[in-house]
Amino acid sequence: MEKQLSLQAQLELMPKRFLSHISLDCVIFGYSDSQLKVLLLKVGPDEYMLPGGFVEKTEGLQEAAKRTLRERTGLKNVFLKQFYTFGEQLRNFPEAVEVMLKNKGLEVPSEHWILQRFISIGYYALVRLNQFQPVPDNLSLSIGWHCVDDLPRLLMDHQEIIKKAQLCFREKQKQCPTVAFLLPEKFTMPELQRAYENVVGSKVERSRFQKTMLATKYFERLKEKRLGVPHRQPYLYHFIESF
Amino acid sequence: MEKQLSLQAQLELMPKRFLSHISLDCVIFGYSDSQLKVLLLKVGPDEYMLPGGFVEKTEGLQEAAKRTLRERTGLKNVFLKQFYTFGEQLRNFPEAVEVMLKNKGLEVPSEHWILQRFISIGYYALVRLNQFQPVPDNLSLSIGWHCVDDLPRLLMDHQEIIKKAQLCFREKQKQCPTVAFLLPEKFTMPELQRAYENVVGSKVERSRFQKTMLATKYFERLKEKRLGVPHRQPYLYHFIESF
Repeated sequence: MEKQLSLQAQLELMPKRFLSHISLDCVIFGYSDSQLKVLLLKVGPDEYMLPGGFVEKTEGLQEAAKRTLRERTGLKNVFLKQFYTFGEQLRNFPEAVEVMLKNKGLEVPSEHWILQRFISIGYYALVRLNQFQPVPDNLSLSIGWHCVDDLPRLLMDHQEIIKKAQLCFREKQKQCPTVAFLLPEKFTMPELQRAYENVVGSKVERSRFQKTMLATKYFERLKEKRLGVPHRQPYLYHFIESF
Repeated sequence: MEKQLSLQAQLELMPKRFLSHISLDCVIFGYSDSQLKVLLLKVGPDEYMLPGGFVEKTEGLQEAAKRTLRERTGLKNVFLKQFYTFGEQLRNFPEAVEVMLKNKGLEVPSEHWILQRFISIGYYALVRLNQFQPVPDNLSLSIGWHCVDDLPRLLMDHQEIIKKAQLCFREKQKQCPTVAFLLPEKFTMPELQRAYENVVGSKVERSRFQKTMLATKYFERLKEKRLGVPHRQPYLYHFIESF
């Protein structure tokens, strides 16, 4: 039903449907070509942003984050973690919202609900990039993966939100190497190590890495080996943790 | 000026002064008698709660948390960290708020701002318990330290908020042993170890603990030793980190 409403009608319904002053932003991480990527919406000729949304009046926060992901990117059933809430006074960006709306031919009065101050709760999601075909919503021109080390121009404080998500994701790895959620379901230890080092930002000695990972009990060695590679064929592993 | 307003007048001004739907809760940790403590406000004959507050319309989140601590407990200049945002739909507790207000002889209409749904941002503070004399605000009957393992009856979801704060505080210790902020400014390694083990919830071998702590570079060995103890007098250390 939602999709049949015009954007203008959706805007008008917002104050009725959502809690005021509270938004969500989702940093969706993927991994390919040995690089950590983030999924961004293109909302203007040269303007990008994180998929974000609001909290329905009768909906929990985590539920709202899941719905936002689904509505804005098509993404379902992924690891999703709250990491930080952004609430500085200077993160008020009515101009950025107006830019975005104008790109869609929309205008709102200056006292409109959507132009008020928002405190935004940040979530990060971990995605097996090759298993998911992102779908942009009708507020966006397109959707696509961008290398975290080479981001385009982002609206509002979304660059800062990505940096913080990266930091929180990194800090969690020693405790539970959730970086494995970015890899295919079966992977070798060297493949895990490459992704881990990329996320953590430092090198680990190979045999020590394998020992540490296996000690976490999060990995199961499969009977299969990686075929078609030169030298000794490495065993495949599986990440036991679920979400 | 604030203090001269009656509670009833303060209640009436809330929708003008604060952002709606957003609250803060502060978990203040202290350490004494080899136990982790938390500072609670007594708001009814048998009812306790965390010092909490709201965000002024032109105030940043961290700033609001600092003000809340100051106004509700007298606490200033402490380590303060945002740890999680609580936003489940079921954490709506108009009944608990009404109990608290009734204890102060106040009543509000059922559609009042303060009885709406709130999403609460959790902060934890670390305090040198002996250097601070808590002062309750005029909404509370008294203020006092309680052992985290033996909490009284807490209003709303405040028990869950404390549990989560404890978990987040614990997880941070390997990265930076901020538990040192709970100790006097000068401490011995065995004193640090006792507090660390208490917070982390597991024992560490003594020489390994000292080696790990010193490797973090967060500690400086002083020339002084702890006097008046039997056996070998241990060196005193100082936590270099600041906030």
